[in-house]
Formats: sequence, structure tokens, C-alpha cells
Amino acid sequence: MSKVRQQYRSVFIHLHSTIPTHTCVWNSAIPSVFDSAFDLSWIKNHLTDSMFQGTRDYNPKQMAIREKVFNTIVSCFKRHGAETIDTPVFELKETLTGKYGEDSKLIYDLKDQGGELLSLRYDLTVPFARYLAMNKITNIKRYHIAKVYRRDNPAMTRGRYREFYQCDFDIAGQYDAMIPDAECLKIVHEILSELDLGDFRIKVNDRRILDGMFAVCGVPDNMFRTICSTVDKLDKLPWEAVKNEMVNEKGLSEEAADQIGVYVGMQGGMDLAERLLQDQKMCQSTQACAGLTDIKLLFSYLQLFQVTDKVVFDLSLARGLDYYTGIIYEAILTQAGVAPVAPETSNEAPTEECVTVGSVAGGGRYDGLVGMFDPKGRKVPCVGVSIGIERIFSIMEQKAEKIRTTEVQVMVAAAQKNLLEERLRLITELWNAGIKAELMYKKSPKLLSQLQHCEESGIPLVAILGEQELKNGVVKLRNVATRDEVDISRADLIAEIKKRTSA
Amino acid sequence: MSKVRQQYRSVFIHLHSTIPTHTCVWNSAIPSVFDSAFDLSWIKNHLTDSMFQGTRDYNPKQMAIREKVFNTIVSCFKRHGAETIDTPVFELKETLTGKYGEDSKLIYDLKDQGGELLSLRYDLTVPFARYLAMNKITNIKRYHIAKVYRRDNPAMTRGRYREFYQCDFDIAGQYDAMIPDAECLKIVHEILSELDLGDFRIKVNDRRILDGMFAVCGVPDNMFRTICSTVDKLDKLPWEAVKNEMVNEKGLSEEAADQIGVYVGMQGGMDLAERLLQDQKMCQSTQACAGLTDIKLLFSYLQLFQVTDKVVFDLSLARGLDYYTGIIYEAILTQAGVAPVAPETSNEAPTEECVTVGSVAGGGRYDGLVGMFDPKGRKVPCVGVSIGIERIFSIMEQKAEKIRTTEVQVMVAAAQKNLLEERLRLITELWNAGIKAELMYKKSPKLLSQLQHCEESGIPLVAILGEQELKNGVVKLRNVATRDEVDISRADLIAEIKKRTSA
Repeated sequence: MSKVRQQYRSVFIHLHSTIPTHTCVWNSAIPSVFDSAFDLSWIKNHLTDSMFQGTRDYNPKQMAIREKVFNTIVSCFKRHGAETIDTPVFELKETLTGKYGEDSKLIYDLKDQGGELLSLRYDLTVPFARYLAMNKITNIKRYHIAKVYRRDNPAMTRGRYREFYQCDFDIAGQYDAMIPDAECLKIVHEILSELDLGDFRIKVNDRRILDGMFAVCGVPDNMFRTICSTVDKLDKLPWEAVKNEMVNEKGLSEEAADQIGVYVGMQGGMDLAERLLQDQKMCQSTQACAGLTDIKLLFSYLQLFQVTDKVVFDLSLARGLDYYTGIIYEAILTQAGVAPVAPETSNEAPTEECVTVGSVAGGGRYDGLVGMFDPKGRKVPCVGVSIGIERIFSIMEQKAEKIRTTEVQVMVAAAQKNLLEERLRLITELWNAGIKAELMYKKSPKLLSQLQHCEESGIPLVAILGEQELKNGVVKLRNVATRDEVDISRADLIAEIKKRTSA
Repeated sequence: MSKVRQQYRSVFIHLHSTIPTHTCVWNSAIPSVFDSAFDLSWIKNHLTDSMFQGTRDYNPKQMAIREKVFNTIVSCFKRHGAETIDTPVFELKETLTGKYGEDSKLIYDLKDQGGELLSLRYDLTVPFARYLAMNKITNIKRYHIAKVYRRDNPAMTRGRYREFYQCDFDIAGQYDAMIPDAECLKIVHEILSELDLGDFRIKVNDRRILDGMFAVCGVPDNMFRTICSTVDKLDKLPWEAVKNEMVNEKGLSEEAADQIGVYVGMQGGMDLAERLLQDQKMCQSTQACAGLTDIKLLFSYLQLFQVTDKVVFDLSLARGLDYYTGIIYEAILTQAGVAPVAPETSNEAPTEECVTVGSVAGGGRYDGLVGMFDPKGRKVPCVGVSIGIERIFSIMEQKAEKIRTTEVQVMVAAAQKNLLEERLRLITELWNAGIKAELMYKKSPKLLSQLQHCEESGIPLVAILGEQELKNGVVKLRNVATRDEVDISRADLIAEIKKRTSA
């Protein structure tokens, strides 16, 4: 694509963004691309670097939201006893090779400037597996929050960027079946409930059920992966289109496709797993049976965890990544009010169709990945979940109204000129006592502008100094919201501020 | 350098590291490179990826330390009313070009895979300036904690990596002189005091004083920068070696070098600034006079901030980066017990020589950088400080003894077999009440192994379930440290755990 067309395309994507882009220059009136007055020079003058790259700056308001979301997520991970690790932003190129199937073309490579060939990490799962193998760790429960990189077409409207955060929680180790798997789903349930993003569903399936289903439906072994990635499109395309791709593009027999069609329309809870275990055809696959038995066990644990209200066993869930070997899952937000909620006590998961606004979490079991990095191929079974934090940010940003970007409790202000030294002396007392305080960096700021700054940035208190206050050994403490003012002795000031700002 | 030699070198650096490298495989007996049995295949089998790259993984213990250090630093930044922003890990290559002088060769470029030419950020200051210009922000007080990248020779022994964190705090805006500059020094003082790393000094100088000094000593204008970077070596080399480089390598006259030698030996406080303002030679430079007047003003504010005990006006402080325009500073740790501390009330800074263990913070004023990114060259004056967090990690790691890597308050354990369901039911109650809890992922774990896990990972409480407890509607709550056990009714359990673990 030519540079100019590429620019045009980026802009087009951006102009149609529904997400406020606080970090860039689009706040002013934006000419329509269909406007006769519209020309490319306007774009060139207004483009931001990060738009080209499909990345973005986070401004203070966005960071305040991000901090809130991260706190909720990290609290949950810690509540479940997780440790955390960190890995470098780049890995040896060979570490990433062969792990992502077709998506490998989206990996960012570093320039060969002498030394090793390096690539930016594509996810946090492969570096985690490399870390376990390298350090011979056979069990760990860890979370990792960090940015990953994909040379994808950025679709910022849908919260998709080339640089984005992943929040991963994984349990590695040889344990009794489905206990850690169920905990991962409990964690997704807790996080999405606490973030209060509206109703959601967690779809569950198992790679072994998918593979068994393909086998009994007559899909040739060597077509499992490609048919699986076609099934994966069912969340975006109707069955007819998916069937068409299977038959006409991938050469599957129509009969096999139709049989798959019957299964992938099935959704339910533990009952569906039980029913499929009785299914004449499905029973022929020992793989599928193992998967279905585990789904049953999983649901029994999910009942004890009190999360079955949101979990659906859905045979159409496929997930693209090669490394999954067992349970897979994906959480989607359903438009508020559209989805009915099944009673907590029922085994029946809600099956009515919900309008989805996209996946916000996903994961599964990958028992073979760590072995790929071990010289002797020793396996470490793993199960994990990744929270799709960027989409959550986008939603929180749209919802967020007034958000403070600092935590300042008190402004140290002067009512008269030439009180800088007195202000510096007072703010030193406050800082040394651990109080969050600021002052204006002017020798003689106007009282009005000091008060206005507090109103604008949400600072709740002002400690005002004037000749009279200094003479009397007091400070005038003003409540910004109510405008009440009261004299407080210097000795009592710190305690008073702490009392008033402890929420 | 050949690949093999390069590998050898990396290993050599690593074998001589004094820092425990928890993340890699060096824990086992390491053959000496001088050993006859030593061969390269051993190295190849034991090498970790990240060692080649000069980067490192952080294990859970290191992360726990990192979290503690970051919390201290961020609390300080927030106490001073800072907001935070984030920028992408890569910038357009042209954004970084021409900002770092000779060090530009250390920039990591991304491979040209179609699209823009991108480079990994080298510091957080240039992206900050780009952000301000792009968003037309004329004043902000912000902090930014993120990783930066330099293709340097890693010296892991000294806490130097190719990927490392920077913790930056900057104040941008047109304000009255030296008030924000003094606050930056107050922040360094607070952070280094709170981290309790031993004694420290903050050296202060001013680019205008350096330039004025060069001018009055007879250094030709076009040699200011190169002579400045030679002066910068005075913290590592004796004066004779520095003079030799000036005269014999850079061609400065011996007379000029000797005059510089007199000045760069000077250290003091406000008194030294006053003395130099009377200095016949220094007075000839209006630049130097402006710098000296500001140093005086700075010290008057530092006195009000109660931090003059650690601040030294030191004419040998140069700092390499091109973009500084005024005050510059650098904090160094002095070996505990070596450095005398001047009394709080004195204007005199400590001048006796201290053995330094390296710079842990640095910064200064850069009034021209933002203008380089503005189409109309509009300037935004800035002053800031960067905390050298990696070196601080290294020190904290060496000091750290027992550090918990999780925050689990209670282990849900079973005294008999087949109580998994009961354990899952109880832990759900605890999680839902916000208690940090874990259980073993086994159907019937042994009580002893459950208790051992608590001892090893520092979990303070165990909630033990058995047939008898279930019959009586109680849980046996065990204090891991004292081994005391007491029956608590299920209804009171959550309150009891909260009471016992509120520290």
C-alpha cells in the first residue's frame, strides 16, 4: 500500500472512532473525509505519530481509569494467592517461532543491529512457558500484567491496538483434574462482576470435544485445525457462511459439515455434557468422552464456586491458538438487559441468544507448551486466563464522568502577596506528615486562581495563610465544596486534614 | 565480535556477578572459566536467553521487592500531586534522532516490516516532550514509570541492563524560578530517605555555570560540549586523567585546563555560590552569574524544605545529555558510615570525600526540548528527575531476607480425605468476603503437606475442616507460627480471620 493511502486509511479508521481519543488532536472540529474541502494536507498536519503506529498515549484521565481497573484485577489475583513475575519485552525470535500458527506474521521483529535476532513479545503465555522451562519450575500460580505487540490492522473503534496490555493469570502444575481450571473461571466471574461492565457470559468448551466431534463427523485428521478455525468464526458469521467456507473453500464434504452444524448449535450446562455422553455418535470418540467427563466435573466445581449463572457449555467455541490441549473458555459482554439470567441454583445455563459486544477474557489449558522449551521435553501442565483489558478500558472510559487524576488532599494557598516562604514551610510540614499537598509555583499567586485550581482538579481542602493567620498561629482551612472556612491551630492542622480526608 | 566470543563474554560477565541471579540457572555448581574441565558446550546448555540480550526475568521474590520500591516512589509522587501518563514502548525513529548526542548509537531500531520506521524508547523524557508538544500541553506535573532500552554493554554486576525501568517525575510550565526545581530535590530526598538505602548526597550544578566557567577559562565555544563530557568523568577518574584527556586528546590548552581544574574542585552550599558571585573571573560571564544567583535561590528554598543536609553544590557535576539548560543534579549513595552529615541548620554542605557506590537519581532543567517537537517551536520549560531504580533493586535484593511473594491470609485445609467439596464451599465464602485464601489442588491432600506449604510460604492462618468440625458447624483455625488451634463457628470465621490478619 502506498504511504499516502496508508495514511488515509489510518485516518479513516480514526475519524470513525466512537471512542474519545483524549490523547490526540481530534478534539477540534474535524472535516469529513467526504467533504469537498477535505484534503490530505489537513490530515498530515493533524496526524499524531501514535495513530500511524496503531498505538496510543494514555493521558492522566485514562491512566486514572487504568489504575482503577488494574487495582480490581490485581486484588482478585492476589485474593487467589498468585505471585507475579515479569519478563523482557523482547524474546529471542526463535522462542516465538512456531507458536502462533498463521498469526506469526504479526510478530514485530527488531532490526538486526549485531547480536541476537529479537522479537517483541506477542503474548504473555509463551514467555511464561519459556520462563518455567528455563528455571525448571514445575508449579506456580502467577499473574503477569504487561504490554504485548501485534502488527495487526489497528481497529481502535473496537479497542484493538498494536500495543496493548494483557492481564494473565495461570496455574502451572500437575494437579487433580478441573480444580485449577474451575478457579480460573471463578476469577473471570469475580473480575467481570466487580468491574460492573454489565451482564456477561462465559462460554466453555474443550479441545478434545472439538477434535472428537470432528473425527466422528468425518473430518479428515489433517483438516482438524483448519476446520477448527472456521468454526471459530461462528461468533461473527451465521452458520450458512461458515458451512460455505468449510465446503467450498476448504473442501469438506457437505455431509460432514451438516453433522458439525448440528453439534455446534448446542449450548447448555452440565445436562448437555451428560446428554452428549449418551450420544451414539459422540461416544465413538474416547477423546470427546474424556472432554465431556471433565466438563461435567468442571460444572460440579463451578456450582460450589457459585458461578454457574454465567457459564455456558457451548460447542461452537473454538479459539484459534494452537497450544490449547483441554478446556477452553471465553467471556463476552452481553448488552445490558438483553440476556436473561438463569437462577443461581439451576444447572441450566442461559441459552437464549444475546447480542455480544465482544470477548473480554479468554483462556484454556495448554499442557504441551512448556515441554517445547525443555531440552528433554518435560511437560508442565498449565491452565490460564487472559483478561482483555483494552476493551474494558474503552468501556470504562465511555462510562467515566468526573475522574480525579491526582490524589491531592489539600492546597497550600496564600491570601496575600509575598508569603511564598510561609507556604513552603507549611507544605514541608504536610509532606513530612504524609499528606498529599500542592501549592502554586508562583511567588504571589492570586487567591482566586488558587481556589479555582482546587475546584477544577477536585482538591477537597485549602489551607489558607494570611498575615492575620500567621500572627494568630492558625491556618484557615476551607472546604472547597461547601466553601466553609474555619481557623485551625497549626498544632492541630495535620490531624484535622487527616480526619477530613479519610474516606 | 564472533558469536562464540560474544557468548563467552556474556557468560564471563555473568559468572562474576555479585548479584544473586534468581531467574536463571546459575544456582547449581558453576564451573570456573579458568577450569580445565570448562568447555563452551556447558555454557550453551546453561545459558538463559535473557543473559544474551542483557535483559532479565523478574522472579516472584524480585517482583515483591519491586512492588515495594514502586509503592514507596509512587506514594511520594502522589504526595506531591503528580498525575501519570503512559506512552508507547516505541516511537517514530525520527522522534528520537538527534536528542542523545553520541549515545544515539545505543538506540534499538525495529525491523522495517513495512510501515513507519520505529525505535524503542531510550528514555522517558523525549517521549514526554513529544507528548506535551503533540497535545499542546503547557503545564503538567506528571510521573511515568516504564521500561527503556539501550544497546549498551550490559554490566549486570552494577545493575546495568539493556532493558531497565525508569521512574520519572517532571514539572512542565512557566513558573517562578527554582520553586519546581527545589521540589524535585525534595522528592529525591524523600524517596532515598524512605527507601533506607544508607547515606546519600545530592550534587547540584547548573549548565549555565559550566558554560560560563568554560568561557572564562578560555575554552573555545565549539568545544564546550566535548569538554563538558570530559568533566563528567570526574566521578570515576582522578583530575590528572581528566586533564590529560582535555589537553592531549581534545587539544585544550594546558592553561585553560588548569583553570577548569581549580573550579571543578569546589564543593559547598549557598556560601560557595555567594563566593563565586564575587569571583573576579566568574563574574565576567553573565550566564554563570545567572546560574549562581539561581543556585542561591534554590538553596534558600531547600532550607525551607529541610533538605540541605544532603545537598552539595559541586562544580564538577556535568551530566552528559544535551538537552539540559539550567540546574542539573545527581544523587549518589555514599558507603554507610563513611560520609559525615552536616547539621540540619547549617548552610554548609558536607564536603569531605565519600566513597560513592554510584548514581541512583539524576535530572535537571530542560527548557528547549518540547519546542523541538512543536511546529512553531513554542517552548515549554521543564524540570524533572529520574530515579535509577535498577540499582536500587540490586541493593534491596541483597538486603532482602525473607520476603513473602503472595499475600495469602489463610489456607483452607482438610484433616481427612474426600473433603474437596467442603473445602471449595468454604473457600468460596472466604473469597466472596474479600479474604485472600488458597487451597491445594488435590482431592485428598495430606494435612502435613498443607501445613508445610503454609510454613514455607508464610501463610499465617489455616482453616482446617474435618468430619467433627463439619458436624459441629465450626472450623479449626490454626495459627501457623504458634501452632495454636481454636474452634471458630462458621458464622464468626470471616470476622475472626479479618481481625487476626489486620496489621
